[in-house]
Amino acid sequence: MLNLPDCQRLDATDPLRPLRDLFSIPDGLIYLDGNSLGVMPESAPARAAQVVSQEWGRGLIRSWNAAGWVDLPQRLGDKIAPLIGAGSGEVVATDSTSINLFKVLSAALSIAAKDQPTRRTIVSERSNFPTDLYIAEGLCAQRGYALKLVEHDSICAALDADTAVLMLTHVNYRTGAMHDLTAVTQAAHAAGVLMVWDLAHSAGAVPVHLGAADADFAVGCGYKYLNGGPGAPAFVWVNPRHTQRTDLPFLQPLSGWWGHAAPFAFTPDYQPAPGIDRYLCGTQPIVSLALLECGLDALKAAEPLGGMVALRAKSLALTDLFITLVEENCRGFGLGLATPREHARRGSQVCLTREHGEGGDSGSGAFAIVQALIARGVIGDYRAGDGGAHKDILRFGFAPLYIGFEDVWNAVEHLRQVLVSEEWKLPAFHQQHAVT
Amino acid sequence: MLNLPDCQRLDATDPLRPLRDLFSIPDGLIYLDGNSLGVMPESAPARAAQVVSQEWGRGLIRSWNAAGWVDLPQRLGDKIAPLIGAGSGEVVATDSTSINLFKVLSAALSIAAKDQPTRRTIVSERSNFPTDLYIAEGLCAQRGYALKLVEHDSICAALDADTAVLMLTHVNYRTGAMHDLTAVTQAAHAAGVLMVWDLAHSAGAVPVHLGAADADFAVGCGYKYLNGGPGAPAFVWVNPRHTQRTDLPFLQPLSGWWGHAAPFAFTPDYQPAPGIDRYLCGTQPIVSLALLECGLDALKAAEPLGGMVALRAKSLALTDLFITLVEENCRGFGLGLATPREHARRGSQVCLTREHGEGGDSGSGAFAIVQALIARGVIGDYRAGDGGAHKDILRFGFAPLYIGFEDVWNAVEHLRQVLVSEEWKLPAFHQQHAVT
Repeated sequence: MLNLPDCQRLDATDPLRPLRDLFSIPDGLIYLDGNSLGVMPESAPARAAQVVSQEWGRGLIRSWNAAGWVDLPQRLGDKIAPLIGAGSGEVVATDSTSINLFKVLSAALSIAAKDQPTRRTIVSERSNFPTDLYIAEGLCAQRGYALKLVEHDSICAALDADTAVLMLTHVNYRTGAMHDLTAVTQAAHAAGVLMVWDLAHSAGAVPVHLGAADADFAVGCGYKYLNGGPGAPAFVWVNPRHTQRTDLPFLQPLSGWWGHAAPFAFTPDYQPAPGIDRYLCGTQPIVSLALLECGLDALKAAEPLGGMVALRAKSLALTDLFITLVEENCRGFGLGLATPREHARRGSQVCLTREHGEGGDSGSGAFAIVQALIARGVIGDYRAGDGGAHKDILRFGFAPLYIGFEDVWNAVEHLRQVLVSEEWKLPAFHQQHAVT
Repeated sequence: MLNLPDCQRLDATDPLRPLRDLFSIPDGLIYLDGNSLGVMPESAPARAAQVVSQEWGRGLIRSWNAAGWVDLPQRLGDKIAPLIGAGSGEVVATDSTSINLFKVLSAALSIAAKDQPTRRTIVSERSNFPTDLYIAEGLCAQRGYALKLVEHDSICAALDADTAVLMLTHVNYRTGAMHDLTAVTQAAHAAGVLMVWDLAHSAGAVPVHLGAADADFAVGCGYKYLNGGPGAPAFVWVNPRHTQRTDLPFLQPLSGWWGHAAPFAFTPDYQPAPGIDRYLCGTQPIVSLALLECGLDALKAAEPLGGMVALRAKSLALTDLFITLVEENCRGFGLGLATPREHARRGSQVCLTREHGEGGDSGSGAFAIVQALIARGVIGDYRAGDGGAHKDILRFGFAPLYIGFEDVWNAVEHLRQVLVSEEWKLPAFHQQHAVT
């Protein structure tokens, strides 16, 4: 069994350890919520000051060209591309994940409607992140499709001659369970189904090979493992075979001027831009977009140290350690493991369950335990169960760019103390906010 | 005829003059492009540093509640509301103008399709800002509607029993011509037509009375006269009679989680939020959104000085002066006036035309004249004509919050010198960039 000095030794010999210095982590905080909002790169405040005071304040309108605002979505897209196995010129950073999902799911349905009009169903996972399901429900209602929701392990079996599109999130937000992106994509294609991936919980945390898997569409989040800042613009990738289609002018239905072939010609007729540019719509929030580059540059700094492969190895070592320590040191407190043990099926987070009733009047007590940990400076988060198969969850994300082995040891020790001392029963830890 | 000392006297006695000190305007610059990108409020750099270094860097995920990120779209919407004649709780700041237009135009079409299914046309203005037309074209193609484009003065005559929606931009981006928002809305309603307004070139520059006019939907821009920063999120207003509709669950088709009645319940079924909240979709770019508040607070500071009424009076005085001085001092150089002289028909910009051929090989020479002015520190912009009815345009915006009468005098004097000296014929002023 590893002890604290062992963990400190692991950090001391970790070749990725210097990457932590690229980030600003508040003293005394063990931040295991990078899967919700990544920490701030050290370079972000200076970049914000530059964009605001210099580029906006001094350069004003001239900065669209002089400061490169005009091609920021493409420039950042090219920095995201290697993280997700996409080619240069295939990705843009823009809008939100929900909006980008609307774009690509619309496009997938339009392609399916034209090429395979008898297929009338979108298949997804019942525990997919809700916004993905909401966007799909809206498009189904509008276009006369059905949304078929199935369990994590029944995906491929659910694909049939009626399935037009399979839409999945690579790593599940509640459980950390990961799909085999290549195998599922192949199964979808074998069934004649278009494949849409949401990489919100995987881009920057686990290697993704969209091109090699020959997937059709993907979207992802800028503010989790890409460390782009609160609400940072998201990204969208489309397989070039689909961006080359010219028979469907409104394939991407958010047909705003930035997706036009010549936005500054100000012509009254929409002509989609070639390539991924047609997935742009309106003017982008430049300050937030520029800050995303700071996060991407930190991931770029990982490249000479082994890049996503090395980060993935560290992430698995961190989550393995966390699981082992929790099971050793927090035994007997009703905790279970929602995240798969198998490496190939695990993202970069570990989700613990607690039995309903263990918390008395507070149900499982999971919410209060998370609050008690936050009060100690260990930031994880809580996701409510449904009273049935989905139990209450304590969720801990391990961003391998900046989380270390000592952090893991300390986090589990705090969890142990919270459980042993029963301090989570204090009334202050039972007040719920809008976002936790 | 006014001279420079007269203009300086007008500034000295202008009760709105202190508002200029709320903004950072680079020394030596006469910035007449606030209709494209507003200048930076003095408070913006400190606010950016606070949001980035403190709220993100130190507060991290806790800032969703502790720093009020979670209700920023509504809080800023309430600051926009009085500028456009809307009520509290009726506006949200979110996404881009193009995306918000997609939301409200979709909603208008859904309402029309249900209430008046035989009406199958959207009417708009041929010289409307292109992204508005592109969004409308896409929705027409998708839903089987026709887009009928008419000239500025033929709008009301074009409404007939086939018209479902009238979509207009209040102040035209090319000419500065302004519609009578109340009269046009009444004409639309009298014809049984839903009214959608784009306030991109009016919010913060001219008084707008959406509620009194009983319009149906409106969108507008955060980075022009609201001074929110490059690509700042836009806003959307919907008449409460439409947000109360519960018979159309996907009335707003970008059905992301932030528009859900309980976004953090993470339920799989979409239930739209009541009120304007259902016009939210995904997570917002918080840094850019927070900076918009700096611009809105500067407009709030104008309230005790007479607010939009006083700003409008000053704007008209500035544009009147510009027109008079150009016609007096720049006579004989082929300049015409594209903007209406009548106050009620003019926004806050003045657009000059130049005859094609006056510039020799460079057509009208308008582009080069604007470039020569920029080189002298007078920032306006250029919009190309179509070789026909739409002439090349030199566009000058007069943001009454920070532009003064001396600025107007100096701008015209520079224009006169550029024309007299013919310095615009220098080759350097003929190189076009992507954005000008």
